[in-house]
Amino acid sequence: MLGNTFGRLFRVTACGESYGDALLVIVDGVPAGMSLCDADIQFDLDRRRPGQTPLDSPRMETDQVKVVSGLLEGVTTGAPVGMIIYNVDRHDIHVQQYRDVKDQIRPGHAEYTYMVKYGTHADWCGAGRASGRETCMRVAAGALAKKILATEGIKVIGYTKSCMGIEATNIPAFDLIETEARKNHIICPDQVAAKKMIDRVMEIKDEGETAGGTIELIARGVPAGLGEPVFDKLNACIAHALMSIGAIKGLEFGAGFGVANMKGSECNDFPYLDENGKVKFRTNNSGGFLGGISNGDDLVMRLAVKPTPTVSVAQPTIDMEKMQETTLGAITRRDPTLLSRIIPVAESMLAMTIVDHLMMWRGYDSLQKFENKWK
Amino acid sequence: MLGNTFGRLFRVTACGESYGDALLVIVDGVPAGMSLCDADIQFDLDRRRPGQTPLDSPRMETDQVKVVSGLLEGVTTGAPVGMIIYNVDRHDIHVQQYRDVKDQIRPGHAEYTYMVKYGTHADWCGAGRASGRETCMRVAAGALAKKILATEGIKVIGYTKSCMGIEATNIPAFDLIETEARKNHIICPDQVAAKKMIDRVMEIKDEGETAGGTIELIARGVPAGLGEPVFDKLNACIAHALMSIGAIKGLEFGAGFGVANMKGSECNDFPYLDENGKVKFRTNNSGGFLGGISNGDDLVMRLAVKPTPTVSVAQPTIDMEKMQETTLGAITRRDPTLLSRIIPVAESMLAMTIVDHLMMWRGYDSLQKFENKWK
Amino acid sequence: MLGNTFGRLFRVTACGESYGDALLVIVDGVPAGMSLCDADIQFDLDRRRPGQTPLDSPRMETDQVKVVSGLLEGVTTGAPVGMIIYNVDRHDIHVQQYRDVKDQIRPGHAEYTYMVKYGTHADWCGAGRASGRETCMRVAAGALAKKILATEGIKVIGYTKSCMGIEATNIPAFDLIETEARKNHIICPDQVAAKKMIDRVMEIKDEGETAGGTIELIARGVPAGLGEPVFDKLNACIAHALMSIGAIKGLEFGAGFGVANMKGSECNDFPYLDENGKVKFRTNNSGGFLGGISNGDDLVMRLAVKPTPTVSVAQPTIDMEKMQETTLGAITRRDPTLLSRIIPVAESMLAMTIVDHLMMWRGYDSLQKFENKWK
Amino acid sequence: MLGNTFGRLFRVTACGESYGDALLVIVDGVPAGMSLCDADIQFDLDRRRPGQTPLDSPRMETDQVKVVSGLLEGVTTGAPVGMIIYNVDRHDIHVQQYRDVKDQIRPGHAEYTYMVKYGTHADWCGAGRASGRETCMRVAAGALAKKILATEGIKVIGYTKSCMGIEATNIPAFDLIETEARKNHIICPDQVAAKKMIDRVMEIKDEGETAGGTIELIARGVPAGLGEPVFDKLNACIAHALMSIGAIKGLEFGAGFGVANMKGSECNDFPYLDENGKVKFRTNNSGGFLGGISNGDDLVMRLAVKPTPTVSVAQPTIDMEKMQETTLGAITRRDPTLLSRIIPVAESMLAMTIVDHLMMWRGYDSLQKFENKWK
Repeated sequence: MLGNTFGRLFRVTACGESYGDALLVIVDGVPAGMSLCDADIQFDLDRRRPGQTPLDSPRMETDQVKVVSGLLEGVTTGAPVGMIIYNVDRHDIHVQQYRDVKDQIRPGHAEYTYMVKYGTHADWCGAGRASGRETCMRVAAGALAKKILATEGIKVIGYTKSCMGIEATNIPAFDLIETEARKNHIICPDQVAAKKMIDRVMEIKDEGETAGGTIELIARGVPAGLGEPVFDKLNACIAHALMSIGAIKGLEFGAGFGVANMKGSECNDFPYLDENGKVKFRTNNSGGFLGGISNGDDLVMRLAVKPTPTVSVAQPTIDMEKMQETTLGAITRRDPTLLSRIIPVAESMLAMTIVDHLMMWRGYDSLQKFENKWK
Repeated sequence: MLGNTFGRLFRVTACGESYGDALLVIVDGVPAGMSLCDADIQFDLDRRRPGQTPLDSPRMETDQVKVVSGLLEGVTTGAPVGMIIYNVDRHDIHVQQYRDVKDQIRPGHAEYTYMVKYGTHADWCGAGRASGRETCMRVAAGALAKKILATEGIKVIGYTKSCMGIEATNIPAFDLIETEARKNHIICPDQVAAKKMIDRVMEIKDEGETAGGTIELIARGVPAGLGEPVFDKLNACIAHALMSIGAIKGLEFGAGFGVANMKGSECNDFPYLDENGKVKFRTNNSGGFLGGISNGDDLVMRLAVKPTPTVSVAQPTIDMEKMQETTLGAITRRDPTLLSRIIPVAESMLAMTIVDHLMMWRGYDSLQKFENKWK
Repeated sequence: MLGNTFGRLFRVTACGESYGDALLVIVDGVPAGMSLCDADIQFDLDRRRPGQTPLDSPRMETDQVKVVSGLLEGVTTGAPVGMIIYNVDRHDIHVQQYRDVKDQIRPGHAEYTYMVKYGTHADWCGAGRASGRETCMRVAAGALAKKILATEGIKVIGYTKSCMGIEATNIPAFDLIETEARKNHIICPDQVAAKKMIDRVMEIKDEGETAGGTIELIARGVPAGLGEPVFDKLNACIAHALMSIGAIKGLEFGAGFGVANMKGSECNDFPYLDENGKVKFRTNNSGGFLGGISNGDDLVMRLAVKPTPTVSVAQPTIDMEKMQETTLGAITRRDPTLLSRIIPVAESMLAMTIVDHLMMWRGYDSLQKFENKWK
Repeated sequence: MLGNTFGRLFRVTACGESYGDALLVIVDGVPAGMSLCDADIQFDLDRRRPGQTPLDSPRMETDQVKVVSGLLEGVTTGAPVGMIIYNVDRHDIHVQQYRDVKDQIRPGHAEYTYMVKYGTHADWCGAGRASGRETCMRVAAGALAKKILATEGIKVIGYTKSCMGIEATNIPAFDLIETEARKNHIICPDQVAAKKMIDRVMEIKDEGETAGGTIELIARGVPAGLGEPVFDKLNACIAHALMSIGAIKGLEFGAGFGVANMKGSECNDFPYLDENGKVKFRTNNSGGFLGGISNGDDLVMRLAVKPTPTVSVAQPTIDMEKMQETTLGAITRRDPTLLSRIIPVAESMLAMTIVDHLMMWRGYDSLQKFENKWK
């Protein structure tokens, strides 16, 4: 397996499986002189932690993170920050359940491709490295990235935008979104829609099923100028980051798929000068990107989240050992929807990408010697 | 500017602007022993070339490519393949037109962000490096990638799926798509829909406007096993590749945004054994990926293409030199829609990503020594 | 700090400081299906561990490694292998010693540059990340790399070649080097020279000083064909790997600096056909590289190792807090020479580089379809 | 072939062979707003150009460089700078000479490894990509890097330090080195030694042989703080850069191999405060690096350059087509020594590496928010 590192300068490397001993993450590129403690990281981890609401998996992981390097007396030293989370809820009873069906492909999961790729030794226990469990280390690293962004006046937030056709339409002002969204279990800032969504998910849960939806991410305070033209456009790197999260099947920026039905002058965002003489845009169909570079407006994007593939409904499948068709029985331990738990993961990936680009851009820009009147 | 290189092992590096002397591309990772001539590359370049139909920009570039390295007696040597295209249609009259408006932000274009990022020396001529002109080098490199994929039995095709609300629904069998799509100017394999789309684009063109749409890409023959779990999932790397194309505002795989309204067992693709005892899937909601790894099914994705931002309609904007609001006049030389020309570009990016992952996977797999009964 | 990851495909990422809680390493690119246990890694770690001979530092670290991911039932799964070593000998008395001199630059150490780069929060405790302590994670990853190389018939060994002017000249056959070298504390396969070296180091130790030397590395079994022409020649990547080890001030391949006094035909290695009709070379002045690609002969190189900068002799220095000149007193806890402990580190870096190139080359080569009669 | 790109942020990608149509280089990361013309690049290319002195190959390449992108009206735009050099002296007579011996391994050259790696299609003409001809693109990119470094007050110079046992000992002050070195054909600032070296090379040339030597490189003005601890130490990245030049068999920094015979306090460079209260070092045994980070002193290093492998003396070799031993006849077109021509190449690689690290460091540092009193 390759690909367990993300980023060019702000570089996150992780390991760990669903039922392994521990998950590790190493974050390179953390500035020195920043106060940091375990609790700073734990906060976002607790947002992602299972077993907290009826919408989550009942798995009882404590997800207690321990920062083991990069710190001296509570302050970052510039050395890479290493973090550990030990898996605790991996009792024999659950391991045995996975062992019992280890040769069966669980539809919508990665077993089949892992078997083809890594052979008989592919990890069959709780989806191994393919489990959403790995995302806790994305969140740990993302919490660090957000702390760095905060020092630059940048904030990243995510919330549930729709679920099973129910759409949040009453979105409060940016500064209120977070508070409002965290008032309910589905992390949706429109309380009326949230209530409907939760009811619908609980109905679906009772059927033994799971529910899909969309989430919206906004990054505010991103200065104009981030993103590298051509192959490493900021939106391209963000797409890489977000699409690397399991369960994401679609991504759109600004007007997104809506542009397919727009005429040129409807889609273009017209610039104007605000009261301070600064360039602003009347609309944000672009999602905050021009030529792949941030334009100073909010970065706005939406992600399509598939329903949890684990369901309590019998499904036709294949026994790979016997190479014959069979039926996979109901599985009870699952998330009725991934929406609420995937939000901090998505925020984290977005935050990491922005930090990485900030560093690249600042490095490049430092070599530019001319007077730049527009910066 | 950074970010002019794409790929890890199969690595494409390009340069060149809309009105510069020439565009160059260097393709590293080309296998030795493959016959190659300029015409192999020219074929796809001609598909992207402007000035061919009423739907394209009238700019008369010949886009004649010359392979200048990596070849000996018509066969690749393993050395990187370098290619040159000289710009020919860059007459003073057009340069002057750009000079006249060089301080004005063209809505929907990259001027503003380039000015902020690169200062007063940012290239104002025909959008410089931000112009779609750079995509000819993506196509040149992509043609090479496709030739390599052909030796592995992999084929990548793209076509217009929708335009301004008109959807292609009558898609022929995979082997016929390319032939059918190339029968019309909008590269849509559903002739009835194509006719309607073209009529609609011509109407919009007459209004001085431009049209958006979606394109669909399919890669057939991709073996199960490509893609690196966690951060470099095949779909994540493809998202990076495709989102790096200017004008793309959305991307979805398989059922895409449709998963937001699906229940788990509706979304899961159930596996079965075909007549040869091989694992197949009854549906392809996943778009051909499980756990970020190709599952042997077609890779299927759709891209939202925004309408060309250049329009023949006056638009409010800002003069950045005077820092005052102004009106940008109509611009006549433009593509009424980007759909047909963006298709070979998107195919190219997809093809490059697949070659890159093939190489990474084969390299990794070569170290695995066990008997893998499922490969 | 950036740069805590090494390798392209076989990728090693580490963190941890001299007096931090723990050191971590994540190794990506480990093939599935390989049996692996802690003891496999511990073996090489014990070779590097301090406190074992009069030539080592008396610090009592146990360096007990724990593999926490990438394994299922004692077999690698393809997932990245994560390892942890907790620091145990970091008692208050030692921390206080470092605190007492934390504003003083220790000559030959990294304090000055760390202060300039990371400011007042740079880790002052036992050299922090700049300490040789980080090399235990290179050795942990290197042990894995060696295990992979063993499956390919490749073996990497290192030994002390010279120390303070005493040169090992009586080098046994390759297969005996390891056994012979491990018979003495300075890891030199020439017992007579080893005796003299050790005596000399002990004399120097008694003066409160430390001793420099050279080590030689040999990799046998490396197939012809590894290394990427131009910028990523195998020897260039090896140079990167080895020069990244603290204390290394020189590196030479094959005849090394001797080539400066050679004529062309003296330096060229003449090829011949051995009894099996295989190409061999009469000499190995090249060190096993032609055009930056392995030629099938042994890879041979030598490294200049500086004396440990920590000495028990007063040294003029600067107090960075007061910005005034001062004298640094004697420090007693130190390695009299780094030679024996640096050998497994150097072997590890060489082994990692070879695995990485094997993977890259195999990946690339898999796309070549022609019959290669010389491979 | 992979590996034709160098650098992380300042990224140089090249292609082209000895007898191909053209060589290309694309330099990414060039700051906008810098005046640039072909002549700026040509200057260093002319230093590397063959056919100028009796010590060079008689091949008559003009090496005329053309900048084709990244410029608008003589000023860099931030877009990648693309450059082309067409090969002109590749007449049939020379191609035929190479064709005649294309199956014979030329000792000391890369044919054997290229054949093994790229098969029968490996480029046999004038060593193809393995020829030193590729280095003209390193010099073109290096000239750009030096221009950037000049804006930061950094200067890189190289000169011949020794040749066939004759050592330059009378080295003038830094500011005079360049002028003095360019007074003679072997680029040695010690005129007496230079005279002896040249005489010796001419004698050796008359024997049909070629001569080895060493070159020294100095970078002055490099600020303290460049280089990334652990794997990407500045010296490690420089080692990668320099060892990637064909013909280099050894590299040492500062006291280099001399450290093998030093005691700790002899090797340590003692810091002091100069008249301005700035930290300086009494000696430079470290070569300007502490912990892999520049310490503000000159970066100093030496390279062992092997004699040109092409000689006018018959050499035993193998015919790879017939797989039998044979004799390779004398070859007349060659460089009697590589020393003078390799100097601009080495300077270029060093300059690129410093620019790359400047950018990385500045990017990282921009996120550090504390007051750093030592910077």
